[in-house]
Amino acid sequence: MEEKMAFDDALKNILILVEEKNYKLAKAELLNLNYADIGEVLEEILEEIGIAETIIIFRMLPKSIAVEVFSYLPADDQVKIVNGITDSEISYIIDQLDFDDKIDVLEELPANVVDKILEKTPKNERRLINTFLNYPEYTAGTLMTPNYISLDEKWTVRQAMEHIKREGMDTETIYTCYVKSQGRKLEGIVSLRTLVISDDDQKVVDLMHRDFVEINVYEDQEEVSEKFKKYGFLAIPVVDNESRLVGIITVDDIFDVIEEEATEDIERMAGVIDKSDAEYLDISVWQHVKNRFPWLFFLMLSYIFTGAIISTSEETLAKVPALIIYMPMLMGTGGNSGSQSATLVIRGISLGDIEFKDGIRVLWKELRVSIIMGLSLSALNFMRIIFEQSDNPLQMQIAITVSVAMIAIVTAAKCIGSMLPIFAKRLGIDPALMASPMISSLTDMVSIGVYLLLAGLFLGV
Amino acid sequence: MEEKMAFDDALKNILILVEEKNYKLAKAELLNLNYADIGEVLEEILEEIGIAETIIIFRMLPKSIAVEVFSYLPADDQVKIVNGITDSEISYIIDQLDFDDKIDVLEELPANVVDKILEKTPKNERRLINTFLNYPEYTAGTLMTPNYISLDEKWTVRQAMEHIKREGMDTETIYTCYVKSQGRKLEGIVSLRTLVISDDDQKVVDLMHRDFVEINVYEDQEEVSEKFKKYGFLAIPVVDNESRLVGIITVDDIFDVIEEEATEDIERMAGVIDKSDAEYLDISVWQHVKNRFPWLFFLMLSYIFTGAIISTSEETLAKVPALIIYMPMLMGTGGNSGSQSATLVIRGISLGDIEFKDGIRVLWKELRVSIIMGLSLSALNFMRIIFEQSDNPLQMQIAITVSVAMIAIVTAAKCIGSMLPIFAKRLGIDPALMASPMISSLTDMVSIGVYLLLAGLFLGV
Repeated sequence: MEEKMAFDDALKNILILVEEKNYKLAKAELLNLNYADIGEVLEEILEEIGIAETIIIFRMLPKSIAVEVFSYLPADDQVKIVNGITDSEISYIIDQLDFDDKIDVLEELPANVVDKILEKTPKNERRLINTFLNYPEYTAGTLMTPNYISLDEKWTVRQAMEHIKREGMDTETIYTCYVKSQGRKLEGIVSLRTLVISDDDQKVVDLMHRDFVEINVYEDQEEVSEKFKKYGFLAIPVVDNESRLVGIITVDDIFDVIEEEATEDIERMAGVIDKSDAEYLDISVWQHVKNRFPWLFFLMLSYIFTGAIISTSEETLAKVPALIIYMPMLMGTGGNSGSQSATLVIRGISLGDIEFKDGIRVLWKELRVSIIMGLSLSALNFMRIIFEQSDNPLQMQIAITVSVAMIAIVTAAKCIGSMLPIFAKRLGIDPALMASPMISSLTDMVSIGVYLLLAGLFLGV
Repeated sequence: MEEKMAFDDALKNILILVEEKNYKLAKAELLNLNYADIGEVLEEILEEIGIAETIIIFRMLPKSIAVEVFSYLPADDQVKIVNGITDSEISYIIDQLDFDDKIDVLEELPANVVDKILEKTPKNERRLINTFLNYPEYTAGTLMTPNYISLDEKWTVRQAMEHIKREGMDTETIYTCYVKSQGRKLEGIVSLRTLVISDDDQKVVDLMHRDFVEINVYEDQEEVSEKFKKYGFLAIPVVDNESRLVGIITVDDIFDVIEEEATEDIERMAGVIDKSDAEYLDISVWQHVKNRFPWLFFLMLSYIFTGAIISTSEETLAKVPALIIYMPMLMGTGGNSGSQSATLVIRGISLGDIEFKDGIRVLWKELRVSIIMGLSLSALNFMRIIFEQSDNPLQMQIAITVSVAMIAIVTAAKCIGSMLPIFAKRLGIDPALMASPMISSLTDMVSIGVYLLLAGLFLGV
């Protein structure tokens, strides 16, 4: 808490200093913070004051600090800074970044800037960068780094530790080491912990695990994060289709993936299709419209059917207009009931708790939940309507219609809401698409249909 | 992919063997898998076949493997197994577990079982366990472990490495080491990487960082996961109110936290209040009802106002029943528009992209998006209604009413949907509560009100 307040104070202070163009003092204050916090301050300067001031401050940082801070910035801010500094500054930063951060930055930069940077890169590294840039988006290939510790299986622990001491500065992690065969096939892995607690004369080959978990370079990033969650490892090796070790993924790169995947799920559940990872405020008005229009339009079309159902009962409604009063409540409660079930089931599927074979158990549970909830809501409404429509000669018939409709609608909505995501998953459709907007448009149709059918039945008009 | 299929085949095979009561072969097949996968198979046996068979298989596993597998099982399955094995087996497993896993299991067990286990625990450890069991749920205290490497700042790298070699077996991680003062105050941290790549004669005091990030033991687990995300560390020290080091949290325990927090958010966004972390199928029907009823009931009440609005216009609707046809579409589209905006803003707030001060910018963006979307949907509906109501003498008036209402409703819904989460946050209410069910109930009221007002205006009835 204290720490957070201390940072907020420092932030406010630095923002004022930058506004006053007192850059020197601002820089001094900045250097009291850690890299991640300096990054956060730069983000704020960029957002609150402007890109020119951000670049002035950024260029005043000592080179080694500037590189670290740069790696903590979000991709779009990195691009803005790159566009404002000189080519030689860009080359220096890119050169100093960890390999996986370097790839991330290069992926975001315009092609001509990338070419300029690659010109100055040594041939071997340039080839490697090009390979990495060519992995499809959202695959393991874009998350990995080729900088890991390779050990020879014939080495002793002493030799291995000496090797790690020499190489340890330039690799992404030294805490998991890899043993490859002649053909670059991954043979085993050994943790630094094992090496440290073992005797100096033991052989790597006797210490390494051969039953390691690996990831294919083309595997989707969602599966990658599932593996990290399941096994709790700090790093997982990445292999190509011939089982050759091509890189490793470390746990610190997984948090962003989890966040991206959760955002995608949540947005889909609200009928927003957003393929970028950009922040809300950075997305243009037109892009927002493009992301939201298709589902809104598609769902609006579904109301043509709902409208058609109503038009068949126009006369009934004209004769007993009191029926209209309860339409929105039935539709709304149906939609909300269905959304609750759909959300719980979608989440259950994505956490692996619910599978296709659980369908019947889910349905049986939802049926019992629906009946309890439907009966309670129905009883409450019955009393309310008797009271509300006390002057209406059709009082009792209306109350019965609404009450019976309530039970039927809640039950139908909960069954539809719980079953659609399960069937969607079975058909290879993302269950997240079967959430609130989709479910409530469907249940609206069902609610109106059921209600007007019952009205015809009980009111006989 | 291949790996996944191999596991699925093994799983199916083992399930068949267990069904056939061929436990010996089942065990042999199990032992080919890694701990996490064995855990997954046990979960499936428990779910598909039964607890008796699960316990038979579990007790056949070599003790050391059983302990590891146990730590991978979900909490509720652990409790089921504990209830089926002997006290001495329980004690053995609990004794062998890592400290943080031990606390997790003890938290889930009934008090009398915990007491029985603690009786056999050495006094010092018993006291420590009791302290840990007393930290409030969902705080850093329940996530941490007291088993870390402590170094003396006066030691050389050589001495430190020897110490790590001796202690490294029993600590949660050896990759970050901690230096404390006399009063147990945390003075600095040093990574094993730094120790490994430094010269043997360097002093710990010269290598350690003093500007480390720490967590208070009572900090909420959500803030803990925010810190891991922000800094990308493998472990973060936990201190008490007097800045004394009481434990560390390692990155592998954060995945569960992120998952729990995301589930809570998503469930709240659908009007479900669920305080447990239990799986959908493990929650009883009554508990499901309790989790869902309050919001559903509260939202249903809001439709009393919507109903009241309609009853003021009963006559208009009775005279022009065609108006009713378009009511569900306007309500549905309003609800969906509002949900889209609310979801994007809620997610933006929880990722830290949107703050209170961005309110005006968000509103301005939503206004422009609304006008574009409202105008398009409105034009489409105008044409549709002209066509659909070609026999109706009020054709033009109805089309104008619906079209104007559409623009107004989409705009109002998007403004309400985007602003409510921002104000909720400001007032200390969880923005996730301002999602689809809440927003669509509110927008339904607004939609009906706007529509009937315009109907009165344009139709003059």
